[in-house]
Amino acid sequence: MTDVDLAHHGDRDTVPGLVDLAVNVRAGGPPAWLGERIAQADVVAYPDQTAALAAVAARHGRPPREVLLTAGAAEAFVLLARALRPRHAVVVHPQFTEPEAALHAAGHRVERLLLAPPFGFDPAAVPADADLVVVGNPTNPTSVLHPAGALRALLRPGRTVVVDEAFADAVPGEPESLAGESHPGLVVVRSLTKTWGIAGLRAGYVLAGHETVDRLRDVQPAWPVSAPALAAAAACSLPAAVVEAEAWAAALGAVRDDLVTRLGAIPDVRVVPAPAASFVLVETPCDDVRTRLLRRGFAVRRGETFPGLGARWVRIAVRDTATSTALADALRAALAEAPA
Amino acid sequence: MTDVDLAHHGDRDTVPGLVDLAVNVRAGGPPAWLGERIAQADVVAYPDQTAALAAVAARHGRPPREVLLTAGAAEAFVLLARALRPRHAVVVHPQFTEPEAALHAAGHRVERLLLAPPFGFDPAAVPADADLVVVGNPTNPTSVLHPAGALRALLRPGRTVVVDEAFADAVPGEPESLAGESHPGLVVVRSLTKTWGIAGLRAGYVLAGHETVDRLRDVQPAWPVSAPALAAAAACSLPAAVVEAEAWAAALGAVRDDLVTRLGAIPDVRVVPAPAASFVLVETPCDDVRTRLLRRGFAVRRGETFPGLGARWVRIAVRDTATSTALADALRAALAEAPA
Repeated sequence: MTDVDLAHHGDRDTVPGLVDLAVNVRAGGPPAWLGERIAQADVVAYPDQTAALAAVAARHGRPPREVLLTAGAAEAFVLLARALRPRHAVVVHPQFTEPEAALHAAGHRVERLLLAPPFGFDPAAVPADADLVVVGNPTNPTSVLHPAGALRALLRPGRTVVVDEAFADAVPGEPESLAGESHPGLVVVRSLTKTWGIAGLRAGYVLAGHETVDRLRDVQPAWPVSAPALAAAAACSLPAAVVEAEAWAAALGAVRDDLVTRLGAIPDVRVVPAPAASFVLVETPCDDVRTRLLRRGFAVRRGETFPGLGARWVRIAVRDTATSTALADALRAALAEAPA
Repeated sequence: MTDVDLAHHGDRDTVPGLVDLAVNVRAGGPPAWLGERIAQADVVAYPDQTAALAAVAARHGRPPREVLLTAGAAEAFVLLARALRPRHAVVVHPQFTEPEAALHAAGHRVERLLLAPPFGFDPAAVPADADLVVVGNPTNPTSVLHPAGALRALLRPGRTVVVDEAFADAVPGEPESLAGESHPGLVVVRSLTKTWGIAGLRAGYVLAGHETVDRLRDVQPAWPVSAPALAAAAACSLPAAVVEAEAWAAALGAVRDDLVTRLGAIPDVRVVPAPAASFVLVETPCDDVRTRLLRRGFAVRRGETFPGLGARWVRIAVRDTATSTALADALRAALAEAPA
C-alpha cells in the first residue's frame, strides 16, 4: 500500500522515563477550570451534543449545522475517506499521515504531492483534475503556516479541499485559518487535543457546508463523541477560553523562538524556518539522530515515517526554555559522536 | 432506504422531568469505585489500550488479539458494516436498529427476518445462503434470551454471525453467551454502557477471531476509545466487578419479575414472556399508549421504530418496585381512557 508506516505516531516514540518531545500535546494537561468541566460531565446519560455544537459554531461564527463533532481529528479523516468518492485524491506531504492512511483503508488511491524544504506550498503544483486535496495548516510535521490565500486558490467546482487545522490554535489570532469561512468544497478539520492537553479524551470537529456535514454524519457511528469530550469542546469554545488559548500560543511562540535559536546554533543542524505550531522540524546530517538522543534522555518524533522526510529528520515538541537548553546541548553532543 | 426511522433511539424518547423508562441504562450511574477509576484516567496522553485489552481478554478467557475495543457497541456495528462485504445480509428483527442502519450506510442491502411474538428464534428460518446474520442475545427490545445452541446452529463456512450481546451481563451467569467461545465466523459485540451506567463514556468491544479483529481495526480511526472509557473497560472487567455485576443482575431479575406480574395483571396488556434483560416489551391494544403514559409522567420507548412492532408496543426499563407500581397504575389508567 505504501512505503512508510503511516500508522506510526508520536505517542509510539515516547519512552517512559525520558523527556517526551515526541508528542505535541500541551505538557501538564488541561488547566484546572477545564479539568473541572470535564469531571462534571454526565457520564450516565447518552451523550447530548446540543451545547457543544452551539459553542463550537459560535466560536467560529458558523451555524451549528456546519459543525460535525468527532472523536478527535483522526475520526474526521476516516469519515471523509468513507463519505467522499474521490477519483483523484492528492495529499500534500510531509503531513500528518492519518488522512492518507484513512483514504487507503477506504479503498482510494492517493497521489502524493511532496514539498521540498523549506516546505512552502504552491497551489499551482496541485494537479488540475484533483477532486480531493488534503493539506495541513500549520502543517504537522513541518510547522509551516501556509497563507490562507494559497489554500483558497485550491478551491474550484467539483473539488473538495480538506485543511487540517489541528494545530491552528497554536497561532495567535489564527490569521491564516479558514475555519470561519464557508466556501463550496471547503472542509476544515480542527482538534482540541493539543492546545488543551486532552489527547486522551478524543475531541475534534469538522467545519464544512451542511450538505458535507450531513454526508459525514451518515457514516458516523451513533453517539460518536463521549460526554467528557463534549464538555471539553463546549468549554474550550467559550470566548474566555479562546482568549486563554491565544495567550498560551503567544507564550509558546517566545519559547519556540528561543528553541530555534539554540538549535540553529548547532553545526550542521537546519531548523525548518518560520515554525508556527507547537513543534519544530529539524534536519541533521545523522541517520541515527533519534536513537542518539534517546541515549541522552530525550524522546523525539522520528522523521522516516513521514513521506518526503527520512531518518535524518526529527520533530521536536516545544516545551520550556530549560528543556530547550538541555535538548540543544544533548543534540550538539549527539552529533559530535563518532558515526555508529 | 427503510420504512421506519432506524436512527431513533430511546434517548430521544426521554422527557426532562418525567420518569425515564425509555433508556435502558442503570439509573443512578456507576458505583463510586468505578466513578473514581474513571476520574483518575489520564486525559493528557493519547489513549493507551494495553491494560483494557488485557483485562477484557482475561474476563472472557480469550487472547487480547481477539478483542477490539470500540466507542460503544454502536461503533462496532459501523466497523462491521464497513469491513465486511456481505452479498446476503440478514438481520433478525425486532432488534436494536443500528446494525441495519450501519449496513445501509455502508451500501449493503439487508433482508429482514421478522420474528413473531413471542419472538423465539429458529435458526432454520435464516436463508441458507445468508453470509451475514445479525441477532441480539438477549434481544433489544424483546428482552428474549435465545439458547446458545440456536445461535451456534447458525455458524457455517463462509458466514459471519454477529451476536449483539450488549445486554448479556444483565443475565446472571450468562449461560447463553458466546463471548468466551471462538468459532470461525462468530463475532460477539458487547457493551459496558448499560449495566454500569456509563452510556456517556462510549465503551464497548468486539470478540472475534484475530483476522476479523484485524480487519475491523483497519477501518477504525486511530485512538478510537477515550482514556476514561478505557479505564472503565479495564475496571469493569476485573473479577470483582464481574461478581458485582452478577449480583446486580440477580437483583434486577427480582424487580423485573415483580414488574411483569404487575403489568400482566392489567387487562389487555401482554408482556413478552421470559424477559432476560433490563427491560420488558409490552403489547397493548392502544396506538397512543406512549403519549398517554407521557401525560401521566412516564417516558417509555416507542415501539414503532422497531421493524416488526408498532405503536401499540412499548419498551419499559426495569427500575425499582416503587417505580414499577406507579408505572403499572399509570398504564392501567391510561388504557382505561376513552379512545382519542
